Amino acid sequence: MNFPPEIQERFLKDELVAAIAQESSTGEILMLAWMNKEALEKTLETKRVTYWSRSRNSLWVKGETSGNTQDLISISYDCDGDAILLKVHQQGSACHTGERTCFHRELTK
Amino acid sequence: MNFPPEIQERFLKDELVAAIAQESSTGEILMLAWMNKEALEKTLETKRVTYWSRSRNSLWVKGETSGNTQDLISISYDCDGDAILLKVHQQGSACHTGERTCFHRELTK
Repeated sequence: MNFPPEIQERFLKDELVAAIAQESSTGEILMLAWMNKEALEKTLETKRVTYWSRSRNSLWVKGETSGNTQDLISISYDCDGDAILLKVHQQGSACHTGERTCFHRELTK
Repeated sequence: MNFPPEIQERFLKDELVAAIAQESSTGEILMLAWMNKEALEKTLETKRVTYWSRSRNSLWVKGETSGNTQDLISISYDCDGDAILLKVHQQGSACHTGERTCFHRELTK
């Protein structure tokens, strides 16, 4: 699959792109994870979001074991090609804690 | 400033955290950039978003020259502490191209 040059360049350097998952129906940010070329290709092909797990060093089909899958609606990419934005329909919870979003704690001064 | 242990751990290892900027009033994702400890502290203290520029290796007060500043509304952080979500009021455009958001191009198969 041919990606835009900004993204292609990252993969050629073996860099990962940051992938933001946003619930399409509400605009809520669910999580941030990482993708390599294979994960991005698989996500586009299957319409089921697949990340690259940095801790396990392997492809990670989101929700494969928990059932909390992410159905892909659309993908956009940023001006320097180091981040993509996934609009998804989240089944159940995005976070492994059971919270709907991984960003469930506020940071205060 | 004392950050939650998940975030503190990143800074102790000299890692950056990914910072997602979301327009508070609309839910639109504006950009993704990076923060070190100093950038996060400065953002919380001044309520004006400051990133760490990886290309220039320096603090980057968003909009300092362009006027397209980001006023901080709130910050949340994710379960593994490698990403934060900034809710902001964006003045003008977030993207250096003049587009409102850096994610202005769609990726298709």
